[in-house]
Amino acid sequence: MTPGLCEDILYHLDLGTKTHNLPAMFGDIKFVCVGGSPNRMRAFAQFMHRELGLAGDGEDVADICAGSDRYAMYRAGPVLSISHGMGIPSISIMLHELIKLLHHAKCRDVTIIRIGTSGGLGIKAGSVVITDTAVDSSFQPRFEQVVLGDVVVRSTELDKDLAEELLACSREIPDFPTLIGHTMCTYDFYEGQGRLDGALCSFSSEKKLEYLRRAYDAGVRNIEMESTAFAALCGLCGLKAAVVCVTLLDRLEGDQIRASHEVLWEYQQRPQRLIAALIRKRLGLGPALLPAD
Amino acid sequence: MTPGLCEDILYHLDLGTKTHNLPAMFGDIKFVCVGGSPNRMRAFAQFMHRELGLAGDGEDVADICAGSDRYAMYRAGPVLSISHGMGIPSISIMLHELIKLLHHAKCRDVTIIRIGTSGGLGIKAGSVVITDTAVDSSFQPRFEQVVLGDVVVRSTELDKDLAEELLACSREIPDFPTLIGHTMCTYDFYEGQGRLDGALCSFSSEKKLEYLRRAYDAGVRNIEMESTAFAALCGLCGLKAAVVCVTLLDRLEGDQIRASHEVLWEYQQRPQRLIAALIRKRLGLGPALLPAD
Repeated sequence: MTPGLCEDILYHLDLGTKTHNLPAMFGDIKFVCVGGSPNRMRAFAQFMHRELGLAGDGEDVADICAGSDRYAMYRAGPVLSISHGMGIPSISIMLHELIKLLHHAKCRDVTIIRIGTSGGLGIKAGSVVITDTAVDSSFQPRFEQVVLGDVVVRSTELDKDLAEELLACSREIPDFPTLIGHTMCTYDFYEGQGRLDGALCSFSSEKKLEYLRRAYDAGVRNIEMESTAFAALCGLCGLKAAVVCVTLLDRLEGDQIRASHEVLWEYQQRPQRLIAALIRKRLGLGPALLPAD
Repeated sequence: MTPGLCEDILYHLDLGTKTHNLPAMFGDIKFVCVGGSPNRMRAFAQFMHRELGLAGDGEDVADICAGSDRYAMYRAGPVLSISHGMGIPSISIMLHELIKLLHHAKCRDVTIIRIGTSGGLGIKAGSVVITDTAVDSSFQPRFEQVVLGDVVVRSTELDKDLAEELLACSREIPDFPTLIGHTMCTYDFYEGQGRLDGALCSFSSEKKLEYLRRAYDAGVRNIEMESTAFAALCGLCGLKAAVVCVTLLDRLEGDQIRASHEVLWEYQQRPQRLIAALIRKRLGLGPALLPAD
């Protein structure tokens, strides 16, 4: 951060060091969970409220960033739940301001987990993938950040112990499959992920399947749009980070997301239930008792 | 689009060809205005409702994409107003689905304008920049799209006549400066735009200013995060497109956005007022009479 900056305005969060007492608001945060959709991250905060046995029903959780419509932020006990929108630029802005927030609030030993949705590769829709390595569209474990017009290559390593701990937690939740694999991160949902159904498409179904099979052979089990930047920025800033995404379809079988709203909503709860199990274990609360609703 | 696709689900808009009568809902749309913030695009639809003299006060405009929280969409007469979130990946998803929507709805002669916020370069905060050319972080008029792992370079040309028509309209609005210039599009708000105040910063204030001055000398007058992808995709799909952004600060003078909410809100209305003047002129309604509120 800028030396001598006497006030730090976290513009897109509508928070700041002069306008808010960040240590009082956030100093006890131990877990930060981030995901694309504001509604989903609100539902996660409500779910965690119940899982942690906090007072009240948690239905009226307040959006801490209500003064901005760029992101939504909720808390349940030591858990912060924040939306990041879609794509690397959107999550990067949020992470820069979140990491500054955690610094200003003097938080210690924070674990950060992205709980997202993704397209699967060769695995059943509804499977949950814990990312061991985030890779780019060439299946390389790197994130290219442009700094003053020059490309800087960064590592996309995630915390291996945390991934293993999550996999161990998943064994307590037998009703959906969970696996560890590489996650491919792209800058685009249509052409960048080899979809044939965008407004533009310049390749054949055969070329698409050849690309997706090469990804599978390189160890990729799901595709999303934030993991490389998330891994790189969290890694450089010393945050223990994990990526846990549910797959909404198997991309080897199609491009369109055709499941019903109800099925998709239940799929989206799966990473939440896994993260709740981890947080309950870390806090000594024992295994989860409540099904998500 | 995929040949033989019997149903097209526009997933992130929560619309589809089987579930919605897209020609009836959208066939008469002539103007599409897009911007990052859902609240701002709702306010723009309400403003256009009044500017077009439509029945009712327009305060209760409905979100056409209410079933999804990824984007918000409103309409006022022949004007569609849609949010796109922040960054190239987020706007790309929306544009793919919007362009398919316009195709399915059999819309003709649509003009599309991005009305956004940006950082200015060497111009007074609150100035409105009409983009002649969208350039990347090396000041080149190109957009690099990854397709099946390979980079495809695309033109970022915008409609010159539309830019000139907008500049002519701006002469009717004397209370803020409007100019034509290059717009630089980056993948990141902090390091990518040479800000010193992110969670990470590896360069000096001198290097930052040297980069920004080189951008100024190359003709860049503002910096945002969507214009190259917007220009490339609209251009390839035959949509006449413009980018009109207000500047919230002068980046040669600082990094943080320090203006009050009230000042920023008034700034954000400036591109809206310019676009309203264009639409009123095109529809033969004469110059705007109402100040924005």
